[in-house]
Formats: sequence, structure tokens, C-alpha cells
Amino acid sequence: MRLALEDAGADYVDVARLRGGMAKLERFLESRSVERPPFAPPFLKAGKQIIGQTANILLYLGPRLGLVPRSEANRLWVHQLQLTIADWLVEVHDSHHPIAGGLYYEEQKPEAMRRAADFVTNRLPKFLGYFEEVLRRNPGGTLLGKKFSYADLSLFQMIAGLRYAVPRAMARLESRCPGAIALHDRVAARPRIAAYLASQRRIPFNRQGIFRHYRELDPR
Amino acid sequence: MRLALEDAGADYVDVARLRGGMAKLERFLESRSVERPPFAPPFLKAGKQIIGQTANILLYLGPRLGLVPRSEANRLWVHQLQLTIADWLVEVHDSHHPIAGGLYYEEQKPEAMRRAADFVTNRLPKFLGYFEEVLRRNPGGTLLGKKFSYADLSLFQMIAGLRYAVPRAMARLESRCPGAIALHDRVAARPRIAAYLASQRRIPFNRQGIFRHYRELDPR
Repeated sequence: MRLALEDAGADYVDVARLRGGMAKLERFLESRSVERPPFAPPFLKAGKQIIGQTANILLYLGPRLGLVPRSEANRLWVHQLQLTIADWLVEVHDSHHPIAGGLYYEEQKPEAMRRAADFVTNRLPKFLGYFEEVLRRNPGGTLLGKKFSYADLSLFQMIAGLRYAVPRAMARLESRCPGAIALHDRVAARPRIAAYLASQRRIPFNRQGIFRHYRELDPR
Repeated sequence: MRLALEDAGADYVDVARLRGGMAKLERFLESRSVERPPFAPPFLKAGKQIIGQTANILLYLGPRLGLVPRSEANRLWVHQLQLTIADWLVEVHDSHHPIAGGLYYEEQKPEAMRRAADFVTNRLPKFLGYFEEVLRRNPGGTLLGKKFSYADLSLFQMIAGLRYAVPRAMARLESRCPGAIALHDRVAARPRIAAYLASQRRIPFNRQGIFRHYRELDPR
């Protein structure tokens, strides 16, 4: 979502990163006056409209930011790719939190080791292989072939995050998905994305986020 | 997805349930000639268009079947609710498969007992409470207030499935979400839905599906 706003040069306020911002988001979610409350962050406030769920936010922003083609068929396809990435992201999260999001990693470490082993052995190659195959069947360097879309930004973010979280697994797998890696590199080189990645606005990957590096979850 | 097609009286073929249907779906997914392959079932073939991801299929079908209002704001809101239900459904699945979808339940039973305990104690009340609150803030008996949408069908399916999977937990929680239960009952009484539920086309809940009943995962 941040990548889409940045790539389009959109004017936005990242409330979660302001001082007291997270508390502000929480208060909003609790407020009884909101007719259509989101279930959880993130959510976008665009004028009076409140939109929750990252994929839904991108569905809304895509056409407005020029990050999706016009036809309905193309929009549904890009959204479908985004929803597949959303599923993949849940699996990344659950590889370190297989029992409960409300418990610390340290409280579910044996289970995480088992789940992460399945993730890097089975699921990660399956997802990477899927996107590689989509790129192969639609030659031109983006998931749509030639046209750029927010799904390309999201695939970039997945690869960047996975390189941080499971560097050993990615080192083994990257030679099998040259198309996805090339797309990652092209996204990173887009001028506004490059400026964003170099800025203070980009939050470095860390152990509070979805992409986390724990050496024991990324064995040789 | 089946509920939406049935409620609208749409003409559709449920390929997965034909003899050899699952193998046919698998062959389709593997076929190299498909330019935009879905990651996994279910997917919808509508004319030449192939649409994957349940929420995306409903995004496509909603307006065509009269199961969502016309304005973009309403469509995004209904889709947001659907995506929240999709997240909830993943948590239902993972309560019996916390380690790997590719392993049997019996191979991950201790982990499932831990995850299911968190699910029924924390997550299930949170999701039910959220939808109850949405119904409370939009009086009229549906998630949109008065207008009916595919999100109402999906909430019905969640409640029906959860009553099968975790009957004890639901017995404890239902008095706290009377609005959601009343909506469930109204959906079940819609003539085409009632006919569908009584038909052979409705697949009974079972231990191969996402909603599974294991007594040990639903303690007193």
C-alpha cells in the first residue's frame, strides 16, 4: 500500500508512523460512531471513505493511481494476484506465529520450527514457482506482460521481505525464479521507489513485522 | 460462491463434483496453455474468463447476480467484509492444520489442540463480535443495514460451518451475537437457499473440508 502511494507520488499521511499514531488508529477502531468499521489496521481514509483490507485498498487505489489497466478483466486478474500474495503473506506470518498472533514467538518456537520447515521446503517454492510461471506465460517483464500494476509492487515487497526473513532459503531458490528476481530489480530501480527505499519513510524490516529473521527458522 | 449462484438461481456447473471433476481442475491448473492460471481451486469459468480466489469471484459475480448494491463505496465495503471472512476462514482451517496443509490432522494434533484453544477463546469471539457490531451499527437485519449482499451469504456459511466444527464453543457464544444468528436464520429461510440446503447439491460438512469437527479441538 505504501509502495503504491509512493510509486504514484501520491500525497498521503502515514498515521501509524506519527507520534501517538497507533493509539489514534486503535481509538478510531473502537469508536462507536464509525458506521463501517474495519476489522483491523491497515485502513485508508480517502475523503470521507474508510477502506480496510490491504487488497481492497489497492483495488480502490489502483485505477486512481494509474497502477492497473482499465478493463475489468485486467483489474480482476491483478486483484487475484494480489489476493494470492495476501495468502502467501499470511503463511509468512504464521511461519513464526503458528499458534497465536497474541503470543510471543518465544512461546511457540518448537511449533514455529516445524511450520517454518514446511514453509521453506514446500510453500515458498510453490508460491515463487507460481509467480515465475505467470511471468513466463506473459512475457514482457511484468505480471501483466508489459503493463505495470500494483501486483508488481507487491511481488517486489514479498521478495525483499523474504530475502530478509529467510536469506538461506532464498539463496537456494532464486536461481529457479529469474523472472521474479528481475521484476524485483526493475521495481527497485523505479525512480520514486528508489527514492522511497532510500528515505526515512521506508521502515526497515525488523522483528516486530510480518517478515522476521530468526536463524533457526531458516536452516541450511 | 455456491450460495451466491444458488441464491440468484444462476445456471452453473459445479465441475469439482462431477465424476473425475477434481482431476479435470488439476489438469487445467497444470496446463501450460492457460495465460492467467489461478494458484489453486476454486475458480470460475465465465465464458472465456477464468477467475480465481473466492473473494474475487464474488466481486465479479456480485453485481451480475444482484447480490451487491451499485455504488462503488458499497461494493468496496461488501468486499472488505468478504475479505475479513476469508481471513477468518483461514484461521478455521489452521485451527486443525496449524503446521502444514500437506500433512494429516493426526500428524499435527498437539499443535492443533494449542491453536484451537486460542481460536475458540480469542479469535472466534473477536470475529463474531466484529460482525455483531457491524450489524448493530447498521440496523435493518443485513450487513449493509437493509440491502442484501453476498457478504450475508458468507456470514451464514461461517456460522453454519462453525456450528458443525465447534458446537460447544458456539453454544457458549451465540447469546452474545443475536444479530448474526438472526441473519443466519433469515438467510437459511430464503427460498432458493432453503431449497439448495435441502438438495443433494449441498455438500454436508465433513472431515475433508475446512470446517471439521474434532471433539478434542472443542473442549467444554
